[in-house]
Amino acid sequence: MTRLTSRTALSARLTPLCAAALALATFSAHAAEGMWMPQQMPAQAKALKAAGLKLDPTQLAKLTEFPLGAVVQLPGCTGSFVSGQGLVVTNHHCAYGSIQHNSTAERDLLKNGFLAKNLAEELPAAPGTRVAVTVDVRDVTAEVLDSATRALSGEARSAAIEARQKALVAACEQDAGHRCSVSNFYGGALYQLRKQLELRDVRLVHAPANGVGLFGGETDNWVWPRHTGDYSFYRAYVGPDGKPADYSPNNKPYAPKQVLKISQGALNEGDFVMVPSYPGTTNRHRLPTEVAHAFDWEMPTLVKAFDEQLQLIHQATAGRRDAEIRQAGRVQGLGNGLNNWRGQLKSYAGSDILARKQADYAALQQWVAAEPKRQAEFGAAFERIEALLKQSQAVEKRELAQGFATPGLLTLARDLLEQAHQRQLPDAQRKPGFQDRDLPRRKQRLQSLERRFDEITELKVLEHTMGQLLALPAEAQNPALLQALGLQPGMDANALRERLKTLHAETSLARDSAERMAWLSRSPAEFAQSRDPFIAAAVALYADDRAREAQAKALAGDLQQARSTLMRAKQAFAAAQGRALYPDANSTLRISHGQVAGRPGPDGAHWSAFSTLRGITEKHQGKGDFDAPAAQLEAIKARRFDRFGVKALDSVPVNFLATLDTTGGSSGSPVLNGKGELVGLCFDGTSDAVISDWDFNPKTTRTIVVDARYMQWQMKVVDKAEGLLKEMGAQ
Amino acid sequence: MTRLTSRTALSARLTPLCAAALALATFSAHAAEGMWMPQQMPAQAKALKAAGLKLDPTQLAKLTEFPLGAVVQLPGCTGSFVSGQGLVVTNHHCAYGSIQHNSTAERDLLKNGFLAKNLAEELPAAPGTRVAVTVDVRDVTAEVLDSATRALSGEARSAAIEARQKALVAACEQDAGHRCSVSNFYGGALYQLRKQLELRDVRLVHAPANGVGLFGGETDNWVWPRHTGDYSFYRAYVGPDGKPADYSPNNKPYAPKQVLKISQGALNEGDFVMVPSYPGTTNRHRLPTEVAHAFDWEMPTLVKAFDEQLQLIHQATAGRRDAEIRQAGRVQGLGNGLNNWRGQLKSYAGSDILARKQADYAALQQWVAAEPKRQAEFGAAFERIEALLKQSQAVEKRELAQGFATPGLLTLARDLLEQAHQRQLPDAQRKPGFQDRDLPRRKQRLQSLERRFDEITELKVLEHTMGQLLALPAEAQNPALLQALGLQPGMDANALRERLKTLHAETSLARDSAERMAWLSRSPAEFAQSRDPFIAAAVALYADDRAREAQAKALAGDLQQARSTLMRAKQAFAAAQGRALYPDANSTLRISHGQVAGRPGPDGAHWSAFSTLRGITEKHQGKGDFDAPAAQLEAIKARRFDRFGVKALDSVPVNFLATLDTTGGSSGSPVLNGKGELVGLCFDGTSDAVISDWDFNPKTTRTIVVDARYMQWQMKVVDKAEGLLKEMGAQ
Repeated sequence: MTRLTSRTALSARLTPLCAAALALATFSAHAAEGMWMPQQMPAQAKALKAAGLKLDPTQLAKLTEFPLGAVVQLPGCTGSFVSGQGLVVTNHHCAYGSIQHNSTAERDLLKNGFLAKNLAEELPAAPGTRVAVTVDVRDVTAEVLDSATRALSGEARSAAIEARQKALVAACEQDAGHRCSVSNFYGGALYQLRKQLELRDVRLVHAPANGVGLFGGETDNWVWPRHTGDYSFYRAYVGPDGKPADYSPNNKPYAPKQVLKISQGALNEGDFVMVPSYPGTTNRHRLPTEVAHAFDWEMPTLVKAFDEQLQLIHQATAGRRDAEIRQAGRVQGLGNGLNNWRGQLKSYAGSDILARKQADYAALQQWVAAEPKRQAEFGAAFERIEALLKQSQAVEKRELAQGFATPGLLTLARDLLEQAHQRQLPDAQRKPGFQDRDLPRRKQRLQSLERRFDEITELKVLEHTMGQLLALPAEAQNPALLQALGLQPGMDANALRERLKTLHAETSLARDSAERMAWLSRSPAEFAQSRDPFIAAAVALYADDRAREAQAKALAGDLQQARSTLMRAKQAFAAAQGRALYPDANSTLRISHGQVAGRPGPDGAHWSAFSTLRGITEKHQGKGDFDAPAAQLEAIKARRFDRFGVKALDSVPVNFLATLDTTGGSSGSPVLNGKGELVGLCFDGTSDAVISDWDFNPKTTRTIVVDARYMQWQMKVVDKAEGLLKEMGAQ
Repeated sequence: MTRLTSRTALSARLTPLCAAALALATFSAHAAEGMWMPQQMPAQAKALKAAGLKLDPTQLAKLTEFPLGAVVQLPGCTGSFVSGQGLVVTNHHCAYGSIQHNSTAERDLLKNGFLAKNLAEELPAAPGTRVAVTVDVRDVTAEVLDSATRALSGEARSAAIEARQKALVAACEQDAGHRCSVSNFYGGALYQLRKQLELRDVRLVHAPANGVGLFGGETDNWVWPRHTGDYSFYRAYVGPDGKPADYSPNNKPYAPKQVLKISQGALNEGDFVMVPSYPGTTNRHRLPTEVAHAFDWEMPTLVKAFDEQLQLIHQATAGRRDAEIRQAGRVQGLGNGLNNWRGQLKSYAGSDILARKQADYAALQQWVAAEPKRQAEFGAAFERIEALLKQSQAVEKRELAQGFATPGLLTLARDLLEQAHQRQLPDAQRKPGFQDRDLPRRKQRLQSLERRFDEITELKVLEHTMGQLLALPAEAQNPALLQALGLQPGMDANALRERLKTLHAETSLARDSAERMAWLSRSPAEFAQSRDPFIAAAVALYADDRAREAQAKALAGDLQQARSTLMRAKQAFAAAQGRALYPDANSTLRISHGQVAGRPGPDGAHWSAFSTLRGITEKHQGKGDFDAPAAQLEAIKARRFDRFGVKALDSVPVNFLATLDTTGGSSGSPVLNGKGELVGLCFDGTSDAVISDWDFNPKTTRTIVVDARYMQWQMKVVDKAEGLLKEMGAQ
């Protein structure tokens, strides 16, 4: 689950379709089963009270009251308000992009950490950083799937659903400063419209040094015992009128309606905890066919590709600290994906997951077939979806190879060209992602390119990935792509290298920020006249891109129809058995609950619920992933535990394990005790349990949480951030 | 503690003095404190019964009765008789030299394991392998330290003690087929004469594949969780007359008086266990000055040197499987030493060990000073020993650098030359190690040289170590050594390489076994005429070697005097407090007792008492240190636990942790339950507790034991060694 911020970086390497395919398998999940929709909580009141919830359970269904009103969404992560002045706490790895954005070789905030001594010293977060406060959610299924839409299939169905959603969003966003979206649950059996207040002036307030915030690095990623201080602070600002605004020195801190308090009491193994968060994606309701495809083909393919890319990036940036900083987010993202998939593949090998999924699916099918009425309503979908998945997998295989070999600047040019085309339509008729509402984000992505792009690395990786693509048989190629870039199947390595060099030498997209931004307002005709090789390639590929897009939409429409039918059958089956059914994660607000608990470790060991400061000293190597700051080591040696020491541990708790069901997107979310007080921040899972995205195992699935006592200890005793603690009322 | 067989291999690289210095710090120790002399057991009867001993405690003082009579000593290890036909069980790593000796690239017993289907198929063990059965032990302190000796100091004292010991040994060995030795306890405050029946026809019966017997390899050495099947079987043979004899096809299995039975009952955490064994060396009674020297200088120096050698050997043998096999024992020994010292250094850093040793020593000194009579008897020794230790450490520093740079063949030549000189004296007047009784062992060491020597590796290592020596300042050099080898300080790397090549090209010691053996019967005059460069160098160095030897003996005599005085003070101090005092380990039979028990692991984890078959599957990588045999993996997957499965573990226990105080030399020793039944074989400790050789920590010190149920399971279910199980009555 860590390194969620890199999701965007990864996706940027792929065509939209591939990015969507990737998202299916990118992040992990954890523990006491169920990422429940808030409205599903009151029905569990009795169990929640018994487990240790002190709050009124009905409170957990109220989005704008305490505690849910304090929970905010960040790109790929979750955060929470912890002061009346808009202070937001989230993970260090969620703020990583902003720390990186403000770092240079001379002023290395990644290495040294950052603490603003006052509001004036706070630094603008990375472009695109948003703090989103959910203000309303409502069921819009009947509006999206009205009787007209229900009758459609294929591309027409996709288009109709898209049109309904756009209309709902447009109406909702009449309220300035808000961002609305329609989410799809249970494979399209339920649609919800969500309205979020979008705070777009976000500033970096405090981040510990990498030696704390990233202690353990890739070595410890997905690992327990863990000792990572994975926390950072942002502050959300609004205009002088209190409304969302772009950055301005005249802006003032936002005053949230709800704020979390840090618990100053005890937290022990067995204690009740819960976590509201925005988990990204799970695949628990996937079909057996999809499970087999993901584990037999998709993950092994991605592991091989990412591993190769990672090695090439390391070679290309070695000895160039500036390039390393620019590629840091990408490296982190690739490493995170690799650890994740390798863990999942290892858990899958020799498991009975597929057999159980098949048995469950067969039971559903049998239950449907047992009654003519059910068979009439749901029966046909079983066969239909298998045919559709076969098509979809064939497309994915082809697109993935193309995606890896596509220059990042070509992806950028294609996006700019489509934007030019879409701009000619009335706003309401444009594709999602190309409406006026999307322009500010596109601008920020374009602006921040220089901070991420490194031509030497780009060329090294492309030489490799394009070389692999060219070596594939003809049926795996897209001749349009090769022609557009001036490449030929079978060309030798030197010729390929020279051609890629020429393309990058002749384009100004990477090096000329003003020119890059200028394309946002040019017309398709101006694109057609450009001699920039990537713009020209985008123009040449335009017809082919649209044809592939139409094919993908047709498939998506049919899949929505079949899958939502199957999910309605599954809901009916569960209801008949008296079971509640939570939907797969889809980046909407969910609540998981469980308890602080250790678990069996590798054979011959048991994992304790808590790690302590002792482990930092044990692991410290003075270099690489284990380089704790000297001041921290000194405070540990001197046993300066302050009020954060726990007698039974004879130390300060650093991280803990909890039976909370979470996944990527849950990163940074506030772990609360029964009274709704903050006791930690969720930041990772364990490698042998990442497969819980697909199949939940209560014995091994745990969320790794940074203990709020460690965060406060490090802030007070080592980093001298007493001002922030005081602001949070934690003293 | 593992890889004890390599002790000889390591020592062969060093001059005798350095080897002795090394032995001070080579191996580890463990748990419920105390490696007790058997005669100290009856005094603990009440505590032993309470802890779970079912046998009569007085039985544990009887060397030739059950169970001690079944315990045997092997070079550097311990074993035990497990059948009436002389079958001996010990560790795989204790039999490693014999497995290696019988292995070739074509018939790789290390890789594939070995099982003799009948007596005729059993293979001769490596030369020098002995099974020693202790038949008598008696206190000879009054004879060694008679009034005449007590009055002496320096070299004269050394010589007198040596003469007394030789006389005692000679008288004892009048009984043919026996080997006698005098051991020194409490720094020379107690001497014991031990008489052992020495069975010298020893054969390899069964060893599992390296993938079982060495599973985890260097990666897991000193590590828990552990999953190593560290067991092998020898058989001791005697002549047709039932007396010890050299190998002959006419020999028959030895019929031991006592035999251990394998427990067929349960063994759980908390159960009483004990282990009789021959632990090599501990340093618990060392002075603070010696502790500081060992950890501040000796171990860091050895770690650096061994690490460098290991890398050079890997480079030199890469791709040459035959050379790898020849160097396997040495590589194992170096790796074992490195792990050991690194573990000790890590534990020592930041600990209060030195401060506590100093405080204890100050208390002793204070107690002595408190009474004039005590002060008169012991007082002077405190100052005296500090001066002696200072001298001794200075000598060690110089000798260690010389030792690492000395060609193995020069060490061999020096030994042969001294043997020629000593042979001219009447047997009783010769130095220990050069008497007629020592000739057979010397012959075997000489014969087996080809199996260990690899010239390419030897040259690569020597170039490096001699290069380092030549770069040292003049006062660290021994000009006699350089001159004897035709070397000059400051010579360049090429010239050094050529000279070392020439030396090895011109000597026949390595390649001509007959010529090598011939030197055993040549006279000093014949040595003086030799043109073999290493024989000539030994001749040139002879006077210098004797001078340094005399210096060492003078120091040893004075140290014996001072140290035995201090130890008598310590004994008196303990007695005054009502405490029993066990002596440091000295390769004599000891008994440790404790229980099966897990312990705290690294911060955030707890180590369980038992590991299981699951861990083998978890760790298996199909290569390197984790390459379990396919048949074993298949049996695990199919859950064919046979009668060895334990319900609570849902598997077969593989290794377990016990609070037993052991160290190198304890390897292979039988771990017994309260009834004296075999429940496992002791084979290792954990890295963070190896420092217990110097300072016992009951919280972390554990012995790692291979569970007898795993051994039986592997033998029966995987390796089809039912014949041996039947012979042991384990069916």
